[in-house]
Amino acid sequence: MCVACNHTIHRARHHFGWNRDFEPVLTAQSGETIHFECLDSSAGQLGADATVESVRTLDFGKVNPVTGPVFVEGAEPGDALKVTIRKFIPSGLGWTANIPGFGLLAEDFPDPALRLWTYDPVSLAPALHGPGGRVPLKPFAGTIGVAPAEPGLHSVVPPRRVGGNLDIRDLSEGVTLYLPVEVPGALFSIGDTHAAQGDGEVCGTAIESRMDVEVTLDLVKDARLAAPRFTTPGPVTRHLDAAGYEVTTGIGPDLMTGAREALKRMIDLLAAEHGMSPVDAYMLCSVCGDLRISEIVDMPNWVVSFYFPRIVFS
Amino acid sequence: MCVACNHTIHRARHHFGWNRDFEPVLTAQSGETIHFECLDSSAGQLGADATVESVRTLDFGKVNPVTGPVFVEGAEPGDALKVTIRKFIPSGLGWTANIPGFGLLAEDFPDPALRLWTYDPVSLAPALHGPGGRVPLKPFAGTIGVAPAEPGLHSVVPPRRVGGNLDIRDLSEGVTLYLPVEVPGALFSIGDTHAAQGDGEVCGTAIESRMDVEVTLDLVKDARLAAPRFTTPGPVTRHLDAAGYEVTTGIGPDLMTGAREALKRMIDLLAAEHGMSPVDAYMLCSVCGDLRISEIVDMPNWVVSFYFPRIVFS
Repeated sequence: MCVACNHTIHRARHHFGWNRDFEPVLTAQSGETIHFECLDSSAGQLGADATVESVRTLDFGKVNPVTGPVFVEGAEPGDALKVTIRKFIPSGLGWTANIPGFGLLAEDFPDPALRLWTYDPVSLAPALHGPGGRVPLKPFAGTIGVAPAEPGLHSVVPPRRVGGNLDIRDLSEGVTLYLPVEVPGALFSIGDTHAAQGDGEVCGTAIESRMDVEVTLDLVKDARLAAPRFTTPGPVTRHLDAAGYEVTTGIGPDLMTGAREALKRMIDLLAAEHGMSPVDAYMLCSVCGDLRISEIVDMPNWVVSFYFPRIVFS
Repeated sequence: MCVACNHTIHRARHHFGWNRDFEPVLTAQSGETIHFECLDSSAGQLGADATVESVRTLDFGKVNPVTGPVFVEGAEPGDALKVTIRKFIPSGLGWTANIPGFGLLAEDFPDPALRLWTYDPVSLAPALHGPGGRVPLKPFAGTIGVAPAEPGLHSVVPPRRVGGNLDIRDLSEGVTLYLPVEVPGALFSIGDTHAAQGDGEVCGTAIESRMDVEVTLDLVKDARLAAPRFTTPGPVTRHLDAAGYEVTTGIGPDLMTGAREALKRMIDLLAAEHGMSPVDAYMLCSVCGDLRISEIVDMPNWVVSFYFPRIVFS
């Protein structure tokens, strides 16, 4: 129970995709705090008893539900919605999957795969990956956004200038996120909660985990924001950086190719050093490894680096 | 003076570009430690009395000198050269420039610009950027590599599978770097030392600063390495992450466009909040802000984020 909240929205009040014509489930005033019950990104299809077969038969019409939308009184196009992320109440259960056709190395990993996770929802102690390694946790909301101006139903998969499926692993507790408002009332929704993810979310999924989230919504009038931006109150990687990193590189004139090469080299390294299967290494990279652009100016070759935190195996 | 070093290579022993036929300045045994005197990336053209005019008239035939090459006894194609970066001895002087035609936003910033830096080479206390803000320092070598197999002279500007102008800001003290050997003796060289840089090196230059470097060279026989990789002994961003980050995003189907948009939005934000000129904000972003790939799987839109450390203005 959230004693400071003005409202609670139950997880039954979710929707699939974005649409400016969805009926709001709540009207809130600027400054109010709301407790959102969120589903996991499979809408419960991949629960504690899920198997690889559950991944194979996943109903894609029911992925990435978001709880909402909330109509914020007075919000108009051109304003920004300031979202203060106050708290996560994690469930302790999660999953990571390789979903065929999805992920940075979809062509190399055509078969479904699944890892289930359990973790302590209070201590958030690092969770154990099946084939070895303990992954430090940092809960955040993968999908957080408002309705786009264009009428009709829009897929939840791609993130947009109004936010949505941003999958930015630093949208965690204490962060302030600003979203461009494009429709009256903003129509804010949130979901797709993750217990951990690296920059890139390379296999396409994180530690997907049902959680509740508490956020405060404030209006910033006439902010004329072009895209989401946010402020973190402190460091963003100290939960996993203490033992340093193993780093592989991809060097060349295309950032996407560089990202794929850096990742493949890390998968090879983890498989060789820890006796993991490549698909397990791929999923492990997704939940804790980071894609960084080391340099983007030394024509014609850029360097994309993949950083894997050594604490996972220490 | 390096009491643990086996050799010292003076800064006069530098070369421009890579060539397997360059005469080695030293033959070293695997396991030996070498003290390299390095020039700055302008080869002294942009010294303490440099002006914008010095940038305009920069002789590009004399950029990015590297000290070496060192012939490592026994090194053969297929081996890896293990480079342990032991120590930097910084000069205390540096520069950052916007060089026309160079940098992620070259079209938006066509005019030359220059900032000179002084810093305490012993304490490495954060250095002051002209228009405001103190940048935490972390010295590293921007260019570190071995000769490529292909005969002839190769530009020093692009990094390659044998390393070179990698501009990876975490190639700092304590790191172990592995480089693929492609020619007998490896022909190792190092230079382009930086006092600070963010991931991306977005304006094309860092805090370029003359330094000496001590490294140990070891052979790893028959390593069959495809590209550089490295191991950091500890965290890589704690020198600047304590106060958190301001973050802007670029969202869309092209990583390069996303990187440019995220950066432009951060320049706008810094200019608005701190009264800086856009070109000063651009150069400041280059020396301390980071380009990260937040997600690369939510088809068809990827998220590139630009992280600016708030400690610079706190």
